[in-house]
Amino acid sequence: MSEDSTQSRRQFLQKTALGGAFAGSFSLPILANADKLELPDNLPHWMRVPGADFSNYGQPSSHEQQIIRWISANPDALGNGVSWTPLHALQGTITPNGLHFERHHNGVPQIDPTQHILLIDGLVDRPLSFDVKSLMRYPMVSRTCFIECGGNSNSGWRSNPIQSQAGYAHGLVSNAEWTGIPLKLLLEEAGIKPSAKWVIAEGADAAALNISIPIEKLLDDALLALYQNGERLRPENGYPMRLVLPGWEGVLNVKWLRQLRLSEQPAMTRDETSQYTDLLADGKARQFSFINEAKSLITTPSLGMMLPDNPGIYQISGLAWSGRGKIARVEISTDGGDSWVDAELQGPILDKAFTRFNLAWKWQGEYAILQSRATDDSGYVQPTREALITNRGKHGFFHYNAIISWEITEEGDINHVYGF
Amino acid sequence: MSEDSTQSRRQFLQKTALGGAFAGSFSLPILANADKLELPDNLPHWMRVPGADFSNYGQPSSHEQQIIRWISANPDALGNGVSWTPLHALQGTITPNGLHFERHHNGVPQIDPTQHILLIDGLVDRPLSFDVKSLMRYPMVSRTCFIECGGNSNSGWRSNPIQSQAGYAHGLVSNAEWTGIPLKLLLEEAGIKPSAKWVIAEGADAAALNISIPIEKLLDDALLALYQNGERLRPENGYPMRLVLPGWEGVLNVKWLRQLRLSEQPAMTRDETSQYTDLLADGKARQFSFINEAKSLITTPSLGMMLPDNPGIYQISGLAWSGRGKIARVEISTDGGDSWVDAELQGPILDKAFTRFNLAWKWQGEYAILQSRATDDSGYVQPTREALITNRGKHGFFHYNAIISWEITEEGDINHVYGF
Repeated sequence: MSEDSTQSRRQFLQKTALGGAFAGSFSLPILANADKLELPDNLPHWMRVPGADFSNYGQPSSHEQQIIRWISANPDALGNGVSWTPLHALQGTITPNGLHFERHHNGVPQIDPTQHILLIDGLVDRPLSFDVKSLMRYPMVSRTCFIECGGNSNSGWRSNPIQSQAGYAHGLVSNAEWTGIPLKLLLEEAGIKPSAKWVIAEGADAAALNISIPIEKLLDDALLALYQNGERLRPENGYPMRLVLPGWEGVLNVKWLRQLRLSEQPAMTRDETSQYTDLLADGKARQFSFINEAKSLITTPSLGMMLPDNPGIYQISGLAWSGRGKIARVEISTDGGDSWVDAELQGPILDKAFTRFNLAWKWQGEYAILQSRATDDSGYVQPTREALITNRGKHGFFHYNAIISWEITEEGDINHVYGF
Repeated sequence: MSEDSTQSRRQFLQKTALGGAFAGSFSLPILANADKLELPDNLPHWMRVPGADFSNYGQPSSHEQQIIRWISANPDALGNGVSWTPLHALQGTITPNGLHFERHHNGVPQIDPTQHILLIDGLVDRPLSFDVKSLMRYPMVSRTCFIECGGNSNSGWRSNPIQSQAGYAHGLVSNAEWTGIPLKLLLEEAGIKPSAKWVIAEGADAAALNISIPIEKLLDDALLALYQNGERLRPENGYPMRLVLPGWEGVLNVKWLRQLRLSEQPAMTRDETSQYTDLLADGKARQFSFINEAKSLITTPSLGMMLPDNPGIYQISGLAWSGRGKIARVEISTDGGDSWVDAELQGPILDKAFTRFNLAWKWQGEYAILQSRATDDSGYVQPTREALITNRGKHGFFHYNAIISWEITEEGDINHVYGF
């Protein structure tokens, strides 16, 4: 079927009819209860009593306590597991610090910042060590970017689609404004020997997680991050300091960073050999893939929600990101990929950061398969699951970025399916 | 003295020498203890014990418990007061939700979102009421902007400079990514009668705070915000919904919004007559000023910190914002305004949002007065205190946006002064 078919376009609300950003077509009453009038002099309870005290550090409403990171802990290994960001319950692009995803190898170390030291050694002219107080005197830059675990969405490699909410299946990715010191500055202060091609980074957790990073990335846009969304890092996100490598997979963004050792070769650590590599169909392993390729996720509507009105107007909304650069385009399909319509992208569109997309959809009770497809400014197009498996084989566990499909039944229920 | 004098420029590190963003001139050892080497096999305690459990909703490190909103409550009026954002302890541009400033007139209402109703009535074709569930089905947009209380920095009107930390004197301003429904959409659904020129907004707190807003602003860029930095609003910031009027003073950004009544005239409420107006020298009152004019604040170094090394290289860093548009320029003076040098602006520079500025400064032990001066893209230049008082008289209480001055003594101590 041709893309942008007339039939397909008719079901979406035309942007030209929206009068600027959004108004216009919405002047029809789209809400069932918009005209059930409540009089303003019908004062609610909370206008009749004094409000609660102020707080030194605010918390979410008690009515939102169900909006949490879902913890998936490995029962066989204490401190090993992940915490999922509830992307299906969030809006905009920033992930609040309390809900940023986590991947832990041995729990959350409780680090006294006055005792923490970062060492830069190996192939340098002079090894250097830095405490937090010293680092606070360096020039800092800010950068909003996503971080995604290489294992995010790995249920996609299984035979049957997992029936978890969007964030609890695909939420090992979050987006924050990170502020810290350009790594280039610290490495150049130590003096990089010409033979140094890799940097072995190690964290100060009990797993002593370590991994090898090409030195070019650290000299490009890597940060030694000290702040996340304005405040100091949270313990579970690397307090007192972590690496942030924009667009590169999570495990490389070493938390609780304590050492950068410059070397000629990668160290071939556990997490770049047995883990975070992809077993291909021919038996070879794809290693050092680094970049999180373009991906997108419809967060609304998604599994666990439903479409109450038939016919009804629904706002399709979601997130797209790419480790290669900016999101250039997100297309939406409601027929399992036969036809596509461009979604509207919410600006500012930042490099290697979440971009939210939106599209109004008029559902008339038909069976539908909702999909989103991201294209980045390098021209990379998010693949179908079939194309991903053709390319990478059936035995993958990491780096799953195929198109995600939500099935809408004629009753308005939503399930996870593997597309058509 | 001429601006950009050679003498002035010499004390700053030249951008051209920085080799890309920051490196280069910093390869000199700027840190006293950078070479006190700690060996990596000297394992700290937290690498020898399993880490702590995962959490459903993260919190700051126990070592950062002093980074709080400072509460300034009115002892004579229960629930009346403000909470200051600790801008001196933050970095980047996003204010985390737990630290967003607050101004309360009768405490923090504890609203059950299933019982909250927003009414749009007055000069409309058909009054409409909306519950939260309905509003969640509307199209949303995101917008990063600051909100500043009209009373921020009002100690500047007093005879003697207040000796509080930067955020506790000037931190009734914060910056967040707000997501919500364009007000234009809801007003047009109700149908705006031609005679409607103002909208009276009322909050569902026990103060029933109400205020008049020109309808043009609501049809321009105003949001009915439901999300702040990705998650639902916090109670103290208006849960379950608030107005966000980018660039317009805080009191207009009505929290716990329950009613928008369209009217021909403003209502002349308490908070637009006796409050949030400026008594001028001629006895007249300046009313409905709306816009937060361009302003800036050096957050580092600032009062409560000190300069430990003499001579030493220090990163001057701060925030600038303007209710008229984007920040176009921030200049730094270290001699009380005799000479100025451009700071580097951290991108992306967003409309009506915090912009961070940075400049490396080599201090050689001299007495100094640090100042920052913001210019926005409308050409408006942040005034000196003298110019502000000349223009507005000595009896102001609100809308203080004059240049803020930190005195550096020869010992490296920092005080708040009124500039030179």
